[in-house]
Amino acid sequence: MLQNIRVVLVNTSHPGNIGGAARAMKNMGLSRLVLVQPRDFPSEQASARASGADDLLAGAEVVDSLEAALVGCTLVLGTSARDRSLPWPMLDPRECGVKAVEHARGGEQIALVFGREHAGLTNDELQRCHFHVHIPSNPDFSSLNLAAAVQVLAYEARSAWLAVQDGARVEVGEASEPLATMDEMERFYDHLEQTLVQIGFLDPAKPKHLMARLRRLYGRSAVNHSEMSILRGILTETQKVARGEPHKRKD
Amino acid sequence: MLQNIRVVLVNTSHPGNIGGAARAMKNMGLSRLVLVQPRDFPSEQASARASGADDLLAGAEVVDSLEAALVGCTLVLGTSARDRSLPWPMLDPRECGVKAVEHARGGEQIALVFGREHAGLTNDELQRCHFHVHIPSNPDFSSLNLAAAVQVLAYEARSAWLAVQDGARVEVGEASEPLATMDEMERFYDHLEQTLVQIGFLDPAKPKHLMARLRRLYGRSAVNHSEMSILRGILTETQKVARGEPHKRKD
Repeated sequence: MLQNIRVVLVNTSHPGNIGGAARAMKNMGLSRLVLVQPRDFPSEQASARASGADDLLAGAEVVDSLEAALVGCTLVLGTSARDRSLPWPMLDPRECGVKAVEHARGGEQIALVFGREHAGLTNDELQRCHFHVHIPSNPDFSSLNLAAAVQVLAYEARSAWLAVQDGARVEVGEASEPLATMDEMERFYDHLEQTLVQIGFLDPAKPKHLMARLRRLYGRSAVNHSEMSILRGILTETQKVARGEPHKRKD
Repeated sequence: MLQNIRVVLVNTSHPGNIGGAARAMKNMGLSRLVLVQPRDFPSEQASARASGADDLLAGAEVVDSLEAALVGCTLVLGTSARDRSLPWPMLDPRECGVKAVEHARGGEQIALVFGREHAGLTNDELQRCHFHVHIPSNPDFSSLNLAAAVQVLAYEARSAWLAVQDGARVEVGEASEPLATMDEMERFYDHLEQTLVQIGFLDPAKPKHLMARLRRLYGRSAVNHSEMSILRGILTETQKVARGEPHKRKD
C-alpha cells in the first residue's frame, strides 16, 4: 500500500540530501523515488548518505519535469512554507499522512513533492498540487533540511498506515480496513451535533465553539472504519434513550 | 516550555549527525543539547550540517556520563529498538511528545536520550530511562539516521505543544492549558464505560474489545483539558437522559 506513495524531489542541489531522503523513505517503508532534474545524480555522496538504501537510489526515476513525475497520480501533496498570499488548502503533516494513506489504500497513486533546498517549490509548481503541506516549525528558523522534511512526511505516512492496521488488529481476524473518509466524517459530525442538541448539551441558540472543538479533536485522530461504526453506534443508542425508546438500561 | 526538553546524544561518532540534530532541534523550537563523550566535537562538519543552528552547538554541554547529562530531569525518555527481551514501558513518538509536553508544562525537566549510531543505548543506559521510545520503521531496514531520529521526536514534541496551544486558541482569550493527564484519561474511560453500559451499548457480559478500541482512539488524540471537560460533560448529560432525569430535550 505504501508503495503507492511516491516521493518527488524537484531540482535537488546536494546529492547528500537525495541519499538522506532515500534512507528516510526506506526506513519508513516507502520505495518509489522520482527526481526532477537533480543537479548531481548519481553521486557517491548520495550513496554514502543512503547508507544501505542503495536499491531506492538505483531504482530512482530521473525525469525532466514535475509533470512527468506526477504521471498517474490522483493526489498531489506539495510541501510549502505557510504563505498567506497564496490561499490554498493546507494540511499539517499528520493530516497529509492520513489523506495519503486513505487514497493509497484505494489503489490510487499519491505524490509527496519537495522543492529546492533554498527556494522550495515555485508558485507554478505549487499550483499543480491538490494540497500544500506545512511542517510546523520555529518561525525564526523554519527551513528544514530536505531529508529531514522527507523523514517527517514519510514518518506520518507510516504512522497513518499503522493506525489503520492497529485498528484492524484489535479484533483478531478482522480484515484490514481504511480510515473514515472525509464525507463519513461530515456525516458523523452532523449526527453528533443532532445528538448533542437532543440530550440538551448543545444549545443551537448559543452553539459557542463546541462543534469546532469536537471537529479538531476527532479530526486529528485518524478515525478508522470500525471506530467510526462504534462512534455512530453510541450516538444512535443515545438518541434512542433521549427519545424515551426502550433500551437495555443497566443502571 | 519546549526549552525544558533537552536532547542528550550519547557517544556520537559522526559530528555531522550532531550538526544535523542541532538543526532539527532548532527547527522544532528545542534549544538545549547535551553531548555525552562525543567522539569528535567541536567540528567543522557539525557546523556545516547545523546550517545556522550554530548557537545550539556553541551552547551544547559536553559531559562525561549519562548520569551527568540527566541532572535535574524528572522524566527520561530513551530511544530504543523494539526489544521483547527487555520488558519496559514503551511509547511511540506521538505518545512521547505528548508525555514530554505534559511534564514540561508543569515546569519539569525532560530528557530525550539517543544512543550510538550503530549500537544504540546499552542495557544499563536504557534502564535509567522511565520510558523507551520506538520509532516505527520498516522491519527490514529499521535503523534511522541519528539526526532523522532526533527530527521525528522533536517534531512530535512540537506537535503536542501546538495541539495544546490550538485547543486553547479555539476560544479567544482562553488561557493556554495542559493536556489531560494519564489519571484524568483513566477517569474518563471509567465514566465512558459506565455510560455505555447505562445506554445499553456495552453489555458487561460481552464487552468484546469495545473499551480497548475506544482507548486506542482517544489515546492517540492528545486530548487537552477543555476537550476533556466537553467529553465528560457529554457523558454526564447522557447519563441524566438515561436515568430519565429532566433535561433540555430539543427533539
